[in-house]
Amino acid sequence: MASMSTVFPKTSPFLSQPLTKPHKSDSITTSISFPSRNRSLRTLRVRARLIEPDGGKLVDLVVSEPRRREKKHEAADLPKVRLTVIDLQWMHVLSEGWASPLRGFMRESEFLQTLHFNLLNLDDGSVVNMSVPIVLAIDDQQKALIGESKRVALVDSDDNPIAILNDIEIYKHPKEERIARTWGTTAPGLPYVEEAITNAGDWLIGGDLEVLEPVKYNDGLDRFRLSPFELRKELEKRGADAVFAFQLRNPVHNGHALLMTDTRRRLLEMGYKNPILLLHPLGGFTKADDVPLSWRMKQHEKVLEDGVLDPKTTVVSIFPSPMLYAGPTEVQWHAKARINAGANFYIVGRDPAGMGHPVEKRDLYDADHGKKVLSMAPGLERLNILPFRVAAYDKTQGKMAFFDPSRAQDFLFISGTKMRALAKNRENPPDGFMCPGGWKVLVDYYDSLTVTGNTKLPEKIPV
Amino acid sequence: MASMSTVFPKTSPFLSQPLTKPHKSDSITTSISFPSRNRSLRTLRVRARLIEPDGGKLVDLVVSEPRRREKKHEAADLPKVRLTVIDLQWMHVLSEGWASPLRGFMRESEFLQTLHFNLLNLDDGSVVNMSVPIVLAIDDQQKALIGESKRVALVDSDDNPIAILNDIEIYKHPKEERIARTWGTTAPGLPYVEEAITNAGDWLIGGDLEVLEPVKYNDGLDRFRLSPFELRKELEKRGADAVFAFQLRNPVHNGHALLMTDTRRRLLEMGYKNPILLLHPLGGFTKADDVPLSWRMKQHEKVLEDGVLDPKTTVVSIFPSPMLYAGPTEVQWHAKARINAGANFYIVGRDPAGMGHPVEKRDLYDADHGKKVLSMAPGLERLNILPFRVAAYDKTQGKMAFFDPSRAQDFLFISGTKMRALAKNRENPPDGFMCPGGWKVLVDYYDSLTVTGNTKLPEKIPV
Repeated sequence: MASMSTVFPKTSPFLSQPLTKPHKSDSITTSISFPSRNRSLRTLRVRARLIEPDGGKLVDLVVSEPRRREKKHEAADLPKVRLTVIDLQWMHVLSEGWASPLRGFMRESEFLQTLHFNLLNLDDGSVVNMSVPIVLAIDDQQKALIGESKRVALVDSDDNPIAILNDIEIYKHPKEERIARTWGTTAPGLPYVEEAITNAGDWLIGGDLEVLEPVKYNDGLDRFRLSPFELRKELEKRGADAVFAFQLRNPVHNGHALLMTDTRRRLLEMGYKNPILLLHPLGGFTKADDVPLSWRMKQHEKVLEDGVLDPKTTVVSIFPSPMLYAGPTEVQWHAKARINAGANFYIVGRDPAGMGHPVEKRDLYDADHGKKVLSMAPGLERLNILPFRVAAYDKTQGKMAFFDPSRAQDFLFISGTKMRALAKNRENPPDGFMCPGGWKVLVDYYDSLTVTGNTKLPEKIPV
Repeated sequence: MASMSTVFPKTSPFLSQPLTKPHKSDSITTSISFPSRNRSLRTLRVRARLIEPDGGKLVDLVVSEPRRREKKHEAADLPKVRLTVIDLQWMHVLSEGWASPLRGFMRESEFLQTLHFNLLNLDDGSVVNMSVPIVLAIDDQQKALIGESKRVALVDSDDNPIAILNDIEIYKHPKEERIARTWGTTAPGLPYVEEAITNAGDWLIGGDLEVLEPVKYNDGLDRFRLSPFELRKELEKRGADAVFAFQLRNPVHNGHALLMTDTRRRLLEMGYKNPILLLHPLGGFTKADDVPLSWRMKQHEKVLEDGVLDPKTTVVSIFPSPMLYAGPTEVQWHAKARINAGANFYIVGRDPAGMGHPVEKRDLYDADHGKKVLSMAPGLERLNILPFRVAAYDKTQGKMAFFDPSRAQDFLFISGTKMRALAKNRENPPDGFMCPGGWKVLVDYYDSLTVTGNTKLPEKIPV
């Protein structure tokens, strides 16, 4: 167990030396090695330390090994619904309990509560936050094929059954309303909408999921896709008494790093003895001009290699959700999912999950709404929200520092868009903006687009 | 007090015999006539009977008589914000506590909670429902005029101060997002949006209201505009042990009447001894092709004269809110406001507060979403939702009856649109659809449009 780690040790670059994921059997062995009285004490201590998952119990929808064969047989005889890549990502999210206590694609009651109130009412009268619809669309033809069946098999692009959806409910897919209430706009050009909603079917199908196997992507990154259960085990193993999550979908620069180390310092000052950072890049669908996951992971590796963040107090893992770019609505989902993974502190920055308006020349969301909405969101009361302090490049120090409005002229703001534009143009950012190894990964990424003749390569952008 | 009544007695047509509104002084007299021990018992009994207002206390923002002079002097020296007709209607709504515990036009925190969660968090950790933004827009010029002032005077179209807004907060008016999240669409042609948002200013101003005088419209209908406080007094006077509210913005036909009398029957069966109907037509802004308030009140009068509803168990009053046509979002507001007026049962029908999609050939909302959303809305748990049974014209009986799907061919559905089209065309509906006196009011209304050459008159519509 000593070698098991999800950090990037300085001496072992994380992509060349795969990390072992924790197995259930390991944890049982570990537990059994404790005398029984001590073990129960330890369990108690550990349980008291990590925040409870939403609904009190982490959902796990993967069929246990002994029953997989039988379930695969059952699936073979059911009407089939083929999943898109994004559907599969949501199934992954659901299967591991990121959306606990949700047990499958939403039925209409859950969909309406999400759309109108960003929450789900539980039977005991409590509420949990749930701000983005996790739904599965089907078209008229698929609906006709399902007929009166109460169960369907979900299949991959090769028609292999990968899950069963039980006790199904089929209801209308009110696309316009879904888009308007989730994004606060219906302007054409929203990346997730164009990818996953516009051409989707006019019906939604909800039900309880049984996933036949743990979801794997076989892209060399599966070992970083720790489930909430696995993350909780790792965090307990480290003896975390505070877990602060940092959601990101962009390369890490030294401003991010400053923020994360400063957050740890603040938590120590608050009296915590062992705050652990969950550095949690989003792994699902992102828009075409974002840096792809594999390159981002390479970049994160270089940043960690460089020692900017302390491997002992950092857990790096991939969050399997697709990205909606739905601003204040989506940031709640990002926070809620991290509660389920054990985080009780959430760092929120300027304009989280935001983007430019697809049609008008302005940001889609007010830059402060994300943190305001997050701080008042029902079901997130247990989570401590840590608003971002603004970091910018301090020209007098030649490094990223917290912005000091009293000497604003000394600071340079480098947005994600500007950063990408610099890398595309093979220009260098100011020294101290990002470690050179990390920057080189970005430049290499944009070079690779040119080399492979990728038509997505945007034109040279003036910065 | 015996003559004071808000019903329409059969013997006294309600428009020819104005109803006295209860005065505070009356109620004090009544109370004082009780021996003190009995009085406190009586207060207890009455309090236990009517549902508590949201936040526990009914908000009253009208400045008390002795302080009005002083407040008017203060207002004279403040920067001025001129109110539109709809702004004034909202000020009226706020001033009487329909939106309790809201004490003025929303500040940003309340606006964001409304937009994202349809609720307001109270200091004691409880929540109340609040689904529609009650906000006041100002433009750049007005914002500049306000400058650093912490208070503004709200003035009418003649620049007379009618209220003071205290401890103001000015924040951006995200029109597109407000529309998308409230209506679930941004399609052009939404009546409230075109009237009150599209051309409104780019800023919102929130604060605590002090209204200088009770709001009056001097249109002959003020006596029917009972405040929640006055309605509660009337309901207590009647000894109501259940109050069921019926929101409407259309003429009453016999299907409505059937529904209301049937609801009372059901409540009696449930064991209530004295259920009172609050027949509560909406009195604020409505779209151009709806029947105006004054004509609807004439029509309601004829229907009551005809004895279709029992005056002894019916309170008729005007709800001063503007109409948003925001379907499932708005129906929550309609229900919440009636809690504040003392109603603990709310009748909800098919597609409440709905309308046709302004651009596409379909209804804007799923007809069932309103009652579903209402039944799951946070902050409305105390309210009993009574879903509508569908009434239609039974050709075999020659009257409105509850629809029986086993003999669907016997029934005729007459929508509000169809009803209006028939009256416009001076055609008669089937006998038993509406009392003849009520129908004549509708025909007279459409005739009046022709006579006055009102350009709003729609063309003859085939029905």
